[in-house]
Amino acid sequence: MPAQTFSYSQLFDFTKTIFQEIGCSPADADTATKVLLSADLRGIDSHGVARLNGYVRLWEVQRVNAQPDIQIIHETPSTAVVNGDSGLGLVIAPKAMQIAIDKAKLVGTGWVSVQNSNHFGIAAYHAMMALEHNMIGIAFTNASPLVAPTFSVERLLGTNPICVVVPAGEEPPFIADMATTTAANGKLEILQRKNGVAPLGWIQDKTGKSSTDPHELKAGGALLPLGGDREHGSNKGYALGAIVDIFSAVLSGANYGPWVPPFPAYVPMPDEQPGKGIGHFFGAMRIDAFRPADEFRQHMDKWIRRFRSAKTVKGHEKVLIPGDPEREMEKERMKIGIPLLNPVINDLVFLAEKFKIKLPVSIKGD
Amino acid sequence: MPAQTFSYSQLFDFTKTIFQEIGCSPADADTATKVLLSADLRGIDSHGVARLNGYVRLWEVQRVNAQPDIQIIHETPSTAVVNGDSGLGLVIAPKAMQIAIDKAKLVGTGWVSVQNSNHFGIAAYHAMMALEHNMIGIAFTNASPLVAPTFSVERLLGTNPICVVVPAGEEPPFIADMATTTAANGKLEILQRKNGVAPLGWIQDKTGKSSTDPHELKAGGALLPLGGDREHGSNKGYALGAIVDIFSAVLSGANYGPWVPPFPAYVPMPDEQPGKGIGHFFGAMRIDAFRPADEFRQHMDKWIRRFRSAKTVKGHEKVLIPGDPEREMEKERMKIGIPLLNPVINDLVFLAEKFKIKLPVSIKGD
Repeated sequence: MPAQTFSYSQLFDFTKTIFQEIGCSPADADTATKVLLSADLRGIDSHGVARLNGYVRLWEVQRVNAQPDIQIIHETPSTAVVNGDSGLGLVIAPKAMQIAIDKAKLVGTGWVSVQNSNHFGIAAYHAMMALEHNMIGIAFTNASPLVAPTFSVERLLGTNPICVVVPAGEEPPFIADMATTTAANGKLEILQRKNGVAPLGWIQDKTGKSSTDPHELKAGGALLPLGGDREHGSNKGYALGAIVDIFSAVLSGANYGPWVPPFPAYVPMPDEQPGKGIGHFFGAMRIDAFRPADEFRQHMDKWIRRFRSAKTVKGHEKVLIPGDPEREMEKERMKIGIPLLNPVINDLVFLAEKFKIKLPVSIKGD
Repeated sequence: MPAQTFSYSQLFDFTKTIFQEIGCSPADADTATKVLLSADLRGIDSHGVARLNGYVRLWEVQRVNAQPDIQIIHETPSTAVVNGDSGLGLVIAPKAMQIAIDKAKLVGTGWVSVQNSNHFGIAAYHAMMALEHNMIGIAFTNASPLVAPTFSVERLLGTNPICVVVPAGEEPPFIADMATTTAANGKLEILQRKNGVAPLGWIQDKTGKSSTDPHELKAGGALLPLGGDREHGSNKGYALGAIVDIFSAVLSGANYGPWVPPFPAYVPMPDEQPGKGIGHFFGAMRIDAFRPADEFRQHMDKWIRRFRSAKTVKGHEKVLIPGDPEREMEKERMKIGIPLLNPVINDLVFLAEKFKIKLPVSIKGD
């Protein structure tokens, strides 16, 4: 598929300007841009600048408040609930994660559930904030319903990711960031564009039958929970997605299950809203609340090295540590730039014209 | 397979006597018995009285200390590390979970990582202790290596379960208790006994090729992480198992990865021991540390009812809530008794003779 490559710094300036144009403060625009582009850098293209126009459209239909009053509405020494005041999740999430970190500094761990938010980009950005504080970081979010629980033909859960980040010593950190479905929605979108064939276990059609047609998702079908079918443990993927939904939304007072607001601004809001906006959940655990941080880091290095050096199945070079592929991608893209597909570039052209600002210049075309 | 059925109370008295015979205090024997038999009641037969002789053998080879001095060795207001002094995990785990609950009472949440323990029965027993305190309960444990990470032919992880328990209002609680593998080892054992065929995605042979032969596990093969293969997200199951290992053991100072001690007493200990015993991790989160408990319970009821009433795939009666099958099993077995297979009964006969105590009388035979 045709693509052009852009430098991080040019995309950064462009994106930050857009967020300021819709009314974000310079500081919030800076944060939102960092979060959004961290997805492009790490190779999670579906969650990066490809969504910029989507956020703008949500602002246009007044589902996003560019100047939110983000507040703690309930707290204990180790917990808080944050009301995001309909702001950008990209801005609310780092603030909520910072509250978790601050609480961990005082009492060992901090846990923050968030209501009244919007999509927050990639979970890893927020969880990784813990690393520089010698903490384990955790981030969950619920999302609009695309996933059918085991035995259901209805979509009742989002792809609800779980992210857990653990610092090591000399080795890079352990960074697991995963949708609780067999395949992330971004992978389906790629197959849809290519009219490709999906492996069985990724999706079901509207009758609940496993399907290899990626377009079934737009014809009443659903993504499947990790496991794919009951025989392969889809009940576990369903339970994991449910845990994310409950921690993010039932605990905070956000919308849950089938009532989570959609990301596309043209999709009407659900009839009923048992809560406010979408929900997130963040955790920070100080390593030295359990054992001396140096000791822990040495053992994490030993853990990582043992796994990385495991004897592999023929045809595979090495056993990966969660976070390895994304870290390598980030290193590469910081150097050679971020490739964007034409539909994404068209969105940026549209935004540049809309707000009368300068379009980034590609540094390499296909 | 031939089986006989025993009453809970007879099995309880027998099991408690055995634990006292190996030197447990009456109170500890009582706890260990409750935990062990909760597995039989809930239908997790692999983790119940079928393992009683296994615990006795560990005690005989001095890998289990029947009179442990269980101590907090490090703590903050919301965290603790517990040294189990090589005791029965069945006794250490409820004490550690109680510490998590006590901390949650004071500062909102409590998190306890445990070193120097042994196998703790089913995770759900411990996590469910949170329910009567209006708390969410969490329990993880690592276990001896049976699972190959994605692309590995070596077994580096246990079946490392994740258990999360959430109270509801009028509805029964949400109880997710799952191995982070496609299939629990207990299911493989059943297939091994029957010479059955395993679905692809459950196990691999010693070269790392997917296999349907359940005996491969004893010929250098391995269980597969939830997902089964890379295309179906086994990297996620691997990451979940790794998170359990790190929280349970790297955080506490227990053994991790391939160095976790085996359950069968005849299997030699690993050459190297980077920590002490096996590790667990427990969490308790007070509901009202986030929002009023009554409000939360009402929304959990709404969540549960919406999922339970979802339109189903043809041939399936209803969408289940995690914990539904085990709760129904418990109700039934409390009434009609617990069926035990002949090999398990033989173990009980062996123990009765060994300790010169009375064998339970079956209430029904096949």
